Amino acid sequence: MPKKQTNPENAIPCLDHGFIRLVDSMGGDDAIVQAARVSYGKGTRKVSQDRGLIRYLLRHRHTTPFEMVEFKFHCKMPIFVARQWVRHRTANINEYSLRYSEARDEFYIPDEKHILFQSKLNKQGRSGEVSADLKKKVQDYFREISDRSYAVYSELNEAGIARELARAVLPVNIYTEWYWKNDLHNILHFLSLRMDPHAQYEIRIYAEAMAKIVKQIAPFAYEAFQDYVVGGMRFSSIEQARLTEQLPDGVINDLLGDTIYSIVATLQRNKPRDEDELFPLYQKNDGQDSEEDFMLKWSAGEIETGNVRELREFKRKLLSLKNGKE
Amino acid sequence: MPKKQTNPENAIPCLDHGFIRLVDSMGGDDAIVQAARVSYGKGTRKVSQDRGLIRYLLRHRHTTPFEMVEFKFHCKMPIFVARQWVRHRTANINEYSLRYSEARDEFYIPDEKHILFQSKLNKQGRSGEVSADLKKKVQDYFREISDRSYAVYSELNEAGIARELARAVLPVNIYTEWYWKNDLHNILHFLSLRMDPHAQYEIRIYAEAMAKIVKQIAPFAYEAFQDYVVGGMRFSSIEQARLTEQLPDGVINDLLGDTIYSIVATLQRNKPRDEDELFPLYQKNDGQDSEEDFMLKWSAGEIETGNVRELREFKRKLLSLKNGKE
Amino acid sequence: MPKKQTNPENAIPCLDHGFIRLVDSMGGDDAIVQAARVSYGKGTRKVSQDRGLIRYLLRHRHTTPFEMVEFKFHCKMPIFVARQWVRHRTANINEYSLRYSEARDEFYIPDEKHILFQSKLNKQGRSGEVSADLKKKVQDYFREISDRSYAVYSELNEAGIARELARAVLPVNIYTEWYWKNDLHNILHFLSLRMDPHAQYEIRIYAEAMAKIVKQIAPFAYEAFQDYVVGGMRFSSIEQARLTEQLPDGVINDLLGDTIYSIVATLQRNKPRDEDELFPLYQKNDGQDSEEDFMLKWSAGEIETGNVRELREFKRKLLSLKNGKE
Amino acid sequence: MPKKQTNPENAIPCLDHGFIRLVDSMGGDDAIVQAARVSYGKGTRKVSQDRGLIRYLLRHRHTTPFEMVEFKFHCKMPIFVARQWVRHRTANINEYSLRYSEARDEFYIPDEKHILFQSKLNKQGRSGEVSADLKKKVQDYFREISDRSYAVYSELNEAGIARELARAVLPVNIYTEWYWKNDLHNILHFLSLRMDPHAQYEIRIYAEAMAKIVKQIAPFAYEAFQDYVVGGMRFSSIEQARLTEQLPDGVINDLLGDTIYSIVATLQRNKPRDEDELFPLYQKNDGQDSEEDFMLKWSAGEIETGNVRELREFKRKLLSLKNGKE
Repeated sequence: MPKKQTNPENAIPCLDHGFIRLVDSMGGDDAIVQAARVSYGKGTRKVSQDRGLIRYLLRHRHTTPFEMVEFKFHCKMPIFVARQWVRHRTANINEYSLRYSEARDEFYIPDEKHILFQSKLNKQGRSGEVSADLKKKVQDYFREISDRSYAVYSELNEAGIARELARAVLPVNIYTEWYWKNDLHNILHFLSLRMDPHAQYEIRIYAEAMAKIVKQIAPFAYEAFQDYVVGGMRFSSIEQARLTEQLPDGVINDLLGDTIYSIVATLQRNKPRDEDELFPLYQKNDGQDSEEDFMLKWSAGEIETGNVRELREFKRKLLSLKNGKE
Repeated sequence: MPKKQTNPENAIPCLDHGFIRLVDSMGGDDAIVQAARVSYGKGTRKVSQDRGLIRYLLRHRHTTPFEMVEFKFHCKMPIFVARQWVRHRTANINEYSLRYSEARDEFYIPDEKHILFQSKLNKQGRSGEVSADLKKKVQDYFREISDRSYAVYSELNEAGIARELARAVLPVNIYTEWYWKNDLHNILHFLSLRMDPHAQYEIRIYAEAMAKIVKQIAPFAYEAFQDYVVGGMRFSSIEQARLTEQLPDGVINDLLGDTIYSIVATLQRNKPRDEDELFPLYQKNDGQDSEEDFMLKWSAGEIETGNVRELREFKRKLLSLKNGKE
Repeated sequence: MPKKQTNPENAIPCLDHGFIRLVDSMGGDDAIVQAARVSYGKGTRKVSQDRGLIRYLLRHRHTTPFEMVEFKFHCKMPIFVARQWVRHRTANINEYSLRYSEARDEFYIPDEKHILFQSKLNKQGRSGEVSADLKKKVQDYFREISDRSYAVYSELNEAGIARELARAVLPVNIYTEWYWKNDLHNILHFLSLRMDPHAQYEIRIYAEAMAKIVKQIAPFAYEAFQDYVVGGMRFSSIEQARLTEQLPDGVINDLLGDTIYSIVATLQRNKPRDEDELFPLYQKNDGQDSEEDFMLKWSAGEIETGNVRELREFKRKLLSLKNGKE
Repeated sequence: MPKKQTNPENAIPCLDHGFIRLVDSMGGDDAIVQAARVSYGKGTRKVSQDRGLIRYLLRHRHTTPFEMVEFKFHCKMPIFVARQWVRHRTANINEYSLRYSEARDEFYIPDEKHILFQSKLNKQGRSGEVSADLKKKVQDYFREISDRSYAVYSELNEAGIARELARAVLPVNIYTEWYWKNDLHNILHFLSLRMDPHAQYEIRIYAEAMAKIVKQIAPFAYEAFQDYVVGGMRFSSIEQARLTEQLPDGVINDLLGDTIYSIVATLQRNKPRDEDELFPLYQKNDGQDSEEDFMLKWSAGEIETGNVRELREFKRKLLSLKNGKE
């Protein structure tokens, strides 16, 4: 009878018996840059510029360079988690087969903290604290079904019944394992769906562990993913119309004004100019303040800098909110 | 020698000799709803509810039901357009083969309006008006290369040289054609990239024609795509932080207040209640006005209604802007 | 509590509670021909020629025209079958979700005929007759686990525990259902793997039912698939070397000779010639008999005809066996 | 103006200006074995057994372990070659973009040896020797169109016309380049189609160069691919019926008899037995000779050995030919 396993060395434990570990990888941030430079021309090569390029690519949905990085993971998880996971179709998978090999006596029993009520609002979610008694009952039932089905399975297996048939009595909380290989673009897509608060807790744990590994191998790409995909906020055209209608012009103008100051300060930080070139630069970027006001604000010296391209994109969005059209 | 073709009957002309036409399709809005109801349970069945369900699915990236609708197009376009198009890998393609068949004397010559200078800002774009003389020169050159390469091709072809070799002298402005089959989810992704102002003009024309056909077959899905994917506006986490920091609390509170009135008015429109239930309903939805102010505003009767779910999502975003975290 | 379902109208029953039914389809043999003619030129148009073209395409792995035909099935099967099925990644799937909806009390209990011992030779198969007693025990155990796990699930569900969690006690013999959409090329690949004698019995049943539907919609394609993919026999280069070495020359020459007679008889059937053109035609096809022998055999009139292209390919294979190289 | 490039260091030259080189790879034969052992259980670990396992997997179409090996190539080829290549849709691609970057003056001019006539038999092929004069004319025409279109392109480019438009006059024999990343299973499929004698010469050259690299990284997999996919011979069910009908029983019995001797000799080589166990072993494997004849043949000592599994599969095929059914 196969014994319970101990986890491999570099595995990140997930749930009660599962794990995820990196088996191999090909490329990282450097491979994204290398591929992008084939497509979009040579450009420059400093590390800070690599970061800017990666952020630009991700922000503008130039996804193919991210496909040039490949990861292979070894994962162990309950079957009901594997069933959600397998729907990401670009991955390559080799799963432990219960037609060939014996099942192992490893079942997922939820810990107390994650036994929750069905959410009323969200038909696919959990919410609401469960009494200690009911929690215990849930765990007892999980253990009962796991133990009994495994005993039955083992008996049939020892009697020589075909494994592919005997395994059909095993519940979906039994652990399976697989090798799972995918490229970074599709892994980020996986993470955006499976780290989402709407994803089931039991797969979110694996997504978060995978994210840690991805962050180590491709830190700039992961940071950009956080800033532009996970974080941030999307307004639909209906919501945008509400904002356009209800945000007072003065408020948007203030935001616009501040953004223009940030653009100028960032340009100045990147490539310092003479004092007397600053106000013309400000005007060229559509600044509306008088020279006097400009100098006052400039010398106050508290202007936030950023990335010029991103600030210009923000400016365009604000103008579009103001004008009610993009 | 193959002659120039006349377009098939239901073809939408694109560029000077191209077209796109619908050959066949399988399902429409109904098939999306049908598939979603397998996954997410039965629910209700009125047309207005179908629309709401489709919008919900698209807004929340439940993309698989959109894959249940299939389109097959017959398209004719210059090779340099086909080369961008073919990168959408989920499509099935059968292309006219110049290994088997003779090339036809059909080449793309840009019209004057679309001969523009290289954009300085956008390395992949055009901008800036070109003189009439230079425009004429461009067209003349296009005609010269097209005519001469076709003459050479024809001569080699008639001399019996292998077609697969002779065709290698033909320029990428020669027209090719293909059958292109894809599902609605991936077609909408194609449209989001190829109708974008950053897409090359010559493929945008085809995307816009395809969009017309898609809109006829699946109008609710297309409308939702416009509202949530094409339209609207995404703020990165950096931009969101700026908004959180710089939008005065009063402004956000006003937006929030209005949204709550809209929620109540929409609930009332959908399922009318007694007068005396309205203020409690308003309070239950986090309304902050006094009963007096509430009645005043309510009787003024100018509250915009919408979709309850969408309004609640908007409210959550505003709260998140206010609290600086989602 | 959801009740057991009755099967939809056009469903083909599979196993004890499952089925497969065609929901929609796009195109058939005609769509294959239509697409092939875009790629490979106009050609002729008689039905018999459509059949020949389809057979040619399939024989020579011109697979893209088969991708132009699309099927959508509604299927209901045990989870352990769905887990094998889902690995065919080109399909679009919408599955009944146990996060949203309640599980139904429908479990697969194998019938006596299909309860077999683990195969010794084939690590993934079954073989060997099981005693009536043991068969009964298997069924009793399946029923016990199914009933008990469903009782536990129902109790947790009624107590309000989140459905996505409660379902984790259910065994993989519970039925699930989905919409499954795929193109004909990939469906034939699915069938070639899942109708194979090495496939697990419980998925083979579904593949066979699917095959019936495919045969109705695209009969020529299905026939060609049977003749060239399912049927027939592949010899590895090692096996081919053995054949070359060990088949006596006389035997291959006899096969070659007969094949050449078949070619001539088929040419004559397709386009009758004058008597005196026959022997030259025979010689042109590498026939080695004297005119006298030829006339004798010809007038005996028992020459099998076939398809000229296929016969010529067979001849080339025989020559290659004879010459020890292809 | 961009200059002609010199090839990168480890590049294998292809055609007149092209190349293919390995940029990176992940795994090799070992990764196939590692993945297979997750799916199919632990098994043994000697190198000879790795080879046997890989051959078994490939022979039986267990393709997923081959997907666990990844290659990234840098390739430079004429556009008309890239257009065939791009149809392999599982690959990830980053191509040099003529919207962003200037075209380089590098065009494919066929060498004399590969300028051939259109094949009459094979609508997509070449055959038949071309006169020296006509060959020269072909080359002159290729040079003329290449030079003239590049001159026109350069002029428009210098005049500032948008690059995405100006490039449309360039012929499909101009070189492009890309990064191309794919897994071993799909690369072998690419090779089986593009190394085939029916593939166009100009892409075959690249497939052959790619094959050399693949062979170095995964030699066992490549060898199995040669033996079972590229080599060997497939008989359709119609052809198989002919063989069954026309091969004399004696001939098949001889082949069968020899195969059984090979099985016994291989078993004996792998695990030597006592003399007196040999004839029973022979009989257990369906040997039909008398003990006397067996000993005679055995002591003659010229029995070919092989792989037991493969020999048994060959035996099954021969039996199936003999019995007219598989």
